[in-house]
Amino acid sequence: MSEEKKLTNISALGEFGLIDRLTKDFSNINESTELGIGDDAAVLSYGDKKTVVSTDLLVEGIHFDLMYMPLKHLGYKSIVVNLSDIYAMNAEPKQVTVSLAISSKFPVEALEELYEGIHLACKNYKVDLIGGDTTSSRSGLVISVTAIGEANAEDLCYRSGAKEGDLICVTGDLGASYLGLQILEREKQIYLEHPGVQPELENAQYLIERHLKPEARRDVIRFFKEAGLKPTAMMDVSDGLSSDIKHICKQSKVGCEIMEAQVPISEDAYHMALNFNIDPITCALNGGEDYELLFTIAPEDETKIADESAFVIIGQITKAENGQVLVTKSNNRHPLKAQGWNHFE
Amino acid sequence: MSEEKKLTNISALGEFGLIDRLTKDFSNINESTELGIGDDAAVLSYGDKKTVVSTDLLVEGIHFDLMYMPLKHLGYKSIVVNLSDIYAMNAEPKQVTVSLAISSKFPVEALEELYEGIHLACKNYKVDLIGGDTTSSRSGLVISVTAIGEANAEDLCYRSGAKEGDLICVTGDLGASYLGLQILEREKQIYLEHPGVQPELENAQYLIERHLKPEARRDVIRFFKEAGLKPTAMMDVSDGLSSDIKHICKQSKVGCEIMEAQVPISEDAYHMALNFNIDPITCALNGGEDYELLFTIAPEDETKIADESAFVIIGQITKAENGQVLVTKSNNRHPLKAQGWNHFE
Repeated sequence: MSEEKKLTNISALGEFGLIDRLTKDFSNINESTELGIGDDAAVLSYGDKKTVVSTDLLVEGIHFDLMYMPLKHLGYKSIVVNLSDIYAMNAEPKQVTVSLAISSKFPVEALEELYEGIHLACKNYKVDLIGGDTTSSRSGLVISVTAIGEANAEDLCYRSGAKEGDLICVTGDLGASYLGLQILEREKQIYLEHPGVQPELENAQYLIERHLKPEARRDVIRFFKEAGLKPTAMMDVSDGLSSDIKHICKQSKVGCEIMEAQVPISEDAYHMALNFNIDPITCALNGGEDYELLFTIAPEDETKIADESAFVIIGQITKAENGQVLVTKSNNRHPLKAQGWNHFE
Repeated sequence: MSEEKKLTNISALGEFGLIDRLTKDFSNINESTELGIGDDAAVLSYGDKKTVVSTDLLVEGIHFDLMYMPLKHLGYKSIVVNLSDIYAMNAEPKQVTVSLAISSKFPVEALEELYEGIHLACKNYKVDLIGGDTTSSRSGLVISVTAIGEANAEDLCYRSGAKEGDLICVTGDLGASYLGLQILEREKQIYLEHPGVQPELENAQYLIERHLKPEARRDVIRFFKEAGLKPTAMMDVSDGLSSDIKHICKQSKVGCEIMEAQVPISEDAYHMALNFNIDPITCALNGGEDYELLFTIAPEDETKIADESAFVIIGQITKAENGQVLVTKSNNRHPLKAQGWNHFE
């Protein structure tokens, strides 16, 4: 690399800007590549059904802290977060590969715990572990998972299909995983300063579990099938609702209005947010790692979800020029700001 | 993890023992999973053609040293080593995913160099980059690549098909990549001690290139097609011939005899090995990272390869009870010892 060039700090681009820049020269040449970079998963066409591929890298110290993340949970979560990407395409995951870089200081039993979690996730979600690579690392644990799934071509949901007037829905509740992480971080600090003190985890079980052992929304994908409902656009909430809905808006060339009052927040999350002096809506909009599904449906499909408690309508798709708007409880309109995870800042 | 249990050091199992142990409880449940763990790549069945998937993790300080590995070469190599696994199934690679964990100290331009190499490899081998994940790391660069390819079911070559009497063949020459690495390591040490000294890289260009910018043997796969030849077993030489042929023997339930005199070593590698006071055959048997193809063919197919210079016959498959034998130039018989890369020792 020439030293004279002016160098750009990664944080100046952000993760998505960086990916755009790095991949701008790539174009797809194979007939079997139906969709490449830019959605939750790639779509390949190797037969009547479509093959869907997604991959994730989890790095110790960035994505998890082994001080409070039990290895079994870590193994479970590393699979689930990838399956969530496949479900977000309205597809069924079928296979995973798992690659590990591990310090040689790890005893085999520690890795067995990790694999117990991987195994449990594979069993619960009925996916096959089909390969991987195991190598050592000089420092820290790195887990790379690739998930492969299938779908009928006509069922696939992209981020690009939302239309003006569509209803924006989200499953479950948001912000709990972020608050679970805050609790674990707080207890870690207390433990480091006062090793004798017992952790205060009362009323925190749900929040911590949402962080340590999230589940992917297979049930919702199955509901869509049974209800004969196909979302117009879909993705999973991994970076935070604010950041994620922007992907749908950008790729669908639309705007959105999110109603603050409709954003689902669990009671535990609400109280814990106040406890931490954070506005609960901030956690719900920007927390991330919820692994819920964010999707849009045509207004005429509203009747199909009338009895469904797994998700709620939180807003509406608008014209692109309206931008992305948060309508507060007091009916004020603010631009929706994405403050999702940015590992490079 | 319970602290009372007696813990096992990873090095006690080795990489393959570790993988066996960690994956012993996994079984495949999906119809589309045709072959899981244990070959160069997994085989999926999503249509008329078979889908082949392979994944690799490259870790700074373990697999590469940025002090002498140019980033563009690293990007190129990280793709090629995965494609090599797909070719080793007698399949054609079509797609790759690339995940990176990077220190935020890396400027964007450094990553662009890495991607230039990735792009060049994708272009040269006609594969599509379809996804990935980019995250930060606390220390060091980690690259995880998954390659996906296709083949007609009847063309796929597994490690398990070798039969007694089959001829053992290897493409290209062996040991050069290992010697290239030794040269780079030597020059690094000299540089660290005497920063002013110019590196001595004369006569080393071929060896260094074999290490920094290996190519996968697409040409050989295409030759097989044209010649109407299907190897009975095949894999790529990544850990070293000794270690790799053992996989074929184990999975095919056979033994082997490797003729030392037939093992292909380039003139440059031969002289450089003597220069380093290493027996050239040791480099060829145990060096690794050659990314040549090691395969077996039925004896009646020998005529089909008579005019072919891309590979040579180096031995024969025997009964399992004969074990794995190296026949030296002086006609002595030694057990073939695997001393391939073991990152956990």
